Amino acid sequence: MRLTDKGKSALEDAVARESPLTIVLNNRELVTLLCSPQDLDHLAMGFLSSEGLIQQKADIASILIDERKGIARVTTAAAAPTEEIFKRFITSGCGRGASFYSAADASRNRVKSATSITYREVLELARRFQQLSPVYKATGGVHSAALCDSRGVIAFAEDIGRHNALDKVFGKCLADGIPTEGRIIITSGRISSEILLKVAARSIPVVISRAAPTDLAVRLADELGVTMLGFVRGQRMNIYANDWRVKYDAG
Amino acid sequence: MRLTDKGKSALEDAVARESPLTIVLNNRELVTLLCSPQDLDHLAMGFLSSEGLIQQKADIASILIDERKGIARVTTAAAAPTEEIFKRFITSGCGRGASFYSAADASRNRVKSATSITYREVLELARRFQQLSPVYKATGGVHSAALCDSRGVIAFAEDIGRHNALDKVFGKCLADGIPTEGRIIITSGRISSEILLKVAARSIPVVISRAAPTDLAVRLADELGVTMLGFVRGQRMNIYANDWRVKYDAG
Repeated sequence: MRLTDKGKSALEDAVARESPLTIVLNNRELVTLLCSPQDLDHLAMGFLSSEGLIQQKADIASILIDERKGIARVTTAAAAPTEEIFKRFITSGCGRGASFYSAADASRNRVKSATSITYREVLELARRFQQLSPVYKATGGVHSAALCDSRGVIAFAEDIGRHNALDKVFGKCLADGIPTEGRIIITSGRISSEILLKVAARSIPVVISRAAPTDLAVRLADELGVTMLGFVRGQRMNIYANDWRVKYDAG
Repeated sequence: MRLTDKGKSALEDAVARESPLTIVLNNRELVTLLCSPQDLDHLAMGFLSSEGLIQQKADIASILIDERKGIARVTTAAAAPTEEIFKRFITSGCGRGASFYSAADASRNRVKSATSITYREVLELARRFQQLSPVYKATGGVHSAALCDSRGVIAFAEDIGRHNALDKVFGKCLADGIPTEGRIIITSGRISSEILLKVAARSIPVVISRAAPTDLAVRLADELGVTMLGFVRGQRMNIYANDWRVKYDAG
């Protein structure tokens, strides 16, 4: 039912879909994600890649998606992950975002790409990105993310979760052999430390959002050499870190 | 740096803070949350309660917050949780939102409260709720949540994560002995299945959001007897489930 000051009416809103996806890795249950039930193979691949459990497409021997049951069965090409991998995953990746405060932190590398983008290119990317969000337009309830270069969008995905949307993009890139290095990520969601680290781990030098960053994400972007743009709305944008990659070409 | 079509200027935006909080339960590391570094005791209590690891304030013997290190040390009053509890937590609560697709589902109870609210009361609550968000106003980067009744806000919290904001509210209620049954939750974030289940588990019959629900959340609200309002903006609101609790008193 919809209520307004003019009265009541029937509610015909489309509502964003949400489904559980359980990832079973080498016959062992790894995690259950709540997600939008599209591109589940990309989500599974991107998630495993983000968690460091696979590095490349060749690391996956098979991936079977059971959409009805919400299960992704992934078998890795190399020997089955040992107990250690599951243990590491469970202790460090458990809950909401622990994985990055682990020993792996020491291995972070600065993103050194010479990629640059102009003010006008950012505005044009943001405009095209928004046009690509059919589910959002219908329901107002999903996030979207895309891999781009300065000329346009290369890989796009939507999900009710901003992490999932990004993992779907990375999974698609893995599946289709699309290189991420030196490119640009644009996301509808806030840039938290986890999002920033996912981006930096793929050697992506620029991340753009319509929304706000957190202070930890700004600090990490600064340290890791990532150019971070937030609040890209209308003709405005804020650059929070490594602004040398953005050339001003307005007026 | 801020870029607009008029030129460049220095960036003086406040940015929302984000810090890790590791919850150590009975000397054992349970989880690391990324959160806004306020009300960490409430967050720890609310999280443990949401995960079913504590039921009431008396279940906690002590809680020590080390803000600098980002650690909450919680000791439970009863015997130390057995291996089973940690195991259950790890397998079912791991990742993003698995906990609710477990055997515990069978024990869900319908919320039977006779609580009702009028159209005008919803609008007034939404207005007051928005006024209470100082961090959001400054940074645009946080979520907020509150326990209310039809007359006003009872407990309010903010966090960069919408789950954390809600857990802080529930933690505050536990700490201060504020009953949640029969009351109302209002949240700035989307209503996903996890949010809906957290609300229903506290026998809260009404949940209100400025944002969208997911289809799974709508289905659960319907089944669990929770009245769900979304897109409460301006003079409008959508009622997705159990609309009998909302009385129309406009005009």
